[in-house]
Amino acid sequence: EGGEMAKSTQLIDNEVFRAYATYTAIVLLKMMLMSLITAYFRITRKAFVNPEDTASFGKGESAKKFLRTDPDVERVRRGHLNDLENIVPFVGIGLLYALSGPELSTALLHFRIFVGARIFHTFAYLIPLPQPGRGLSWAVGYSVTFSMAYRVLKTAWLL
Amino acid sequence: EGGEMAKSTQLIDNEVFRAYATYTAIVLLKMMLMSLITAYFRITRKAFVNPEDTASFGKGESAKKFLRTDPDVERVRRGHLNDLENIVPFVGIGLLYALSGPELSTALLHFRIFVGARIFHTFAYLIPLPQPGRGLSWAVGYSVTFSMAYRVLKTAWLL
Amino acid sequence: EGGEMAKSTQLIDNEVFRAYATYTAIVLLKMMLMSLITAYFRITRKAFVNPEDTASFGKGESAKKFLRTDPDVERVRRGHLNDLENIVPFVGIGLLYALSGPELSTALLHFRIFVGARIFHTFAYLIPLPQPGRGLSWAVGYSVTFSMAYRVLKTAWLL
Repeated sequence: EGGEMAKSTQLIDNEVFRAYATYTAIVLLKMMLMSLITAYFRITRKAFVNPEDTASFGKGESAKKFLRTDPDVERVRRGHLNDLENIVPFVGIGLLYALSGPELSTALLHFRIFVGARIFHTFAYLIPLPQPGRGLSWAVGYSVTFSMAYRVLKTAWLL
Repeated sequence: EGGEMAKSTQLIDNEVFRAYATYTAIVLLKMMLMSLITAYFRITRKAFVNPEDTASFGKGESAKKFLRTDPDVERVRRGHLNDLENIVPFVGIGLLYALSGPELSTALLHFRIFVGARIFHTFAYLIPLPQPGRGLSWAVGYSVTFSMAYRVLKTAWLL
Repeated sequence: EGGEMAKSTQLIDNEVFRAYATYTAIVLLKMMLMSLITAYFRITRKAFVNPEDTASFGKGESAKKFLRTDPDVERVRRGHLNDLENIVPFVGIGLLYALSGPELSTALLHFRIFVGARIFHTFAYLIPLPQPGRGLSWAVGYSVTFSMAYRVLKTAWLL
């Protein structure tokens, strides 16, 4: 029993897996930050969706005017959804990639570029920077995930 | 060959990993339930998005009036998206946390509070309960994931 | 050190895990393809959300008219969100299922039907095919994930 536990927790001793764990935790925390930024803009711009969220502003018509969309809130929400669309594949494919036995230096290169590109993407979306800044950072992250998927399929292929 | 297979499937013998598997399956099934609730409200409220979904109600103008948004449908959809935004980080960070060798009792505490908070969040969103019920349950789940991420980064840190 | 690394990377030698890795990589790449299709429709239909994305079409009013929604773009985006809602549970539950020690033939059956159903679902959404084509393919994928979750809970149950 103890032996089994020791054996399976040792996955975290693998250096490539440790790097995967570090970068995945960082990029998922970054994605979670989008919720806080959305909440910040909803409160400062007074722009809500749910009637129960505006109850503290009073009853009836006085509260209803805060049920509205705001460009800044919508911008953060688009950035958040873009994170989901891109970070979910990274987390899933990255795990399989980390288990496929790549060189540590190659793996670090993939993880660092992806996480750097996604952090840049968030700044590019929220500031916002002129295009093609945001588009390029999206493409860089996309290509890294694609490159990891290629190695996973080459190593694991069993259809 | 058989030896390898036996070794890797034994991860499921680790008690912390079994707890992770149990709570992750439960909370992902809960998230999947949101699709059924959306479908239920779309059909009972007759509120659809795709023209091909209203074809059974007749052709032309008679079917077009069912291409509309409905407050109940939109509410379930917001709950579903909120699940995606919060359950995805839990599943990813929770896996790394389960492999970082925490005490079973500590791990169970994290998993139970997170899954309990997300189930409460769904009820708070759909009933809906007055704030800050929904907000607090969201914050509780968020904090649990944050706490797990802290341990993952402390254990695995390799940048 | 080397021994640890060898041990953990051997997960990829497990045939069920290799099948999981193959099908997960394929279905996540399919989901990532939705971003490219969205970009294709945004550019060909000239329908954008962010003002900075239309800057290359000129300044002021001439560019503003491209800040609009387009039915084809919205359709792809709904397909993408539906992918997220369904592929995230597959990836999470499927990993636990692959580690629960199922027969290779049973696991392959689950993975093949799920990925086949999701590929069909994308075609059904984008062409679009008349209902219940899209609805049925959604239900098939949903049922496969449910079946895997049942085995995970039966094998790992620790509440």
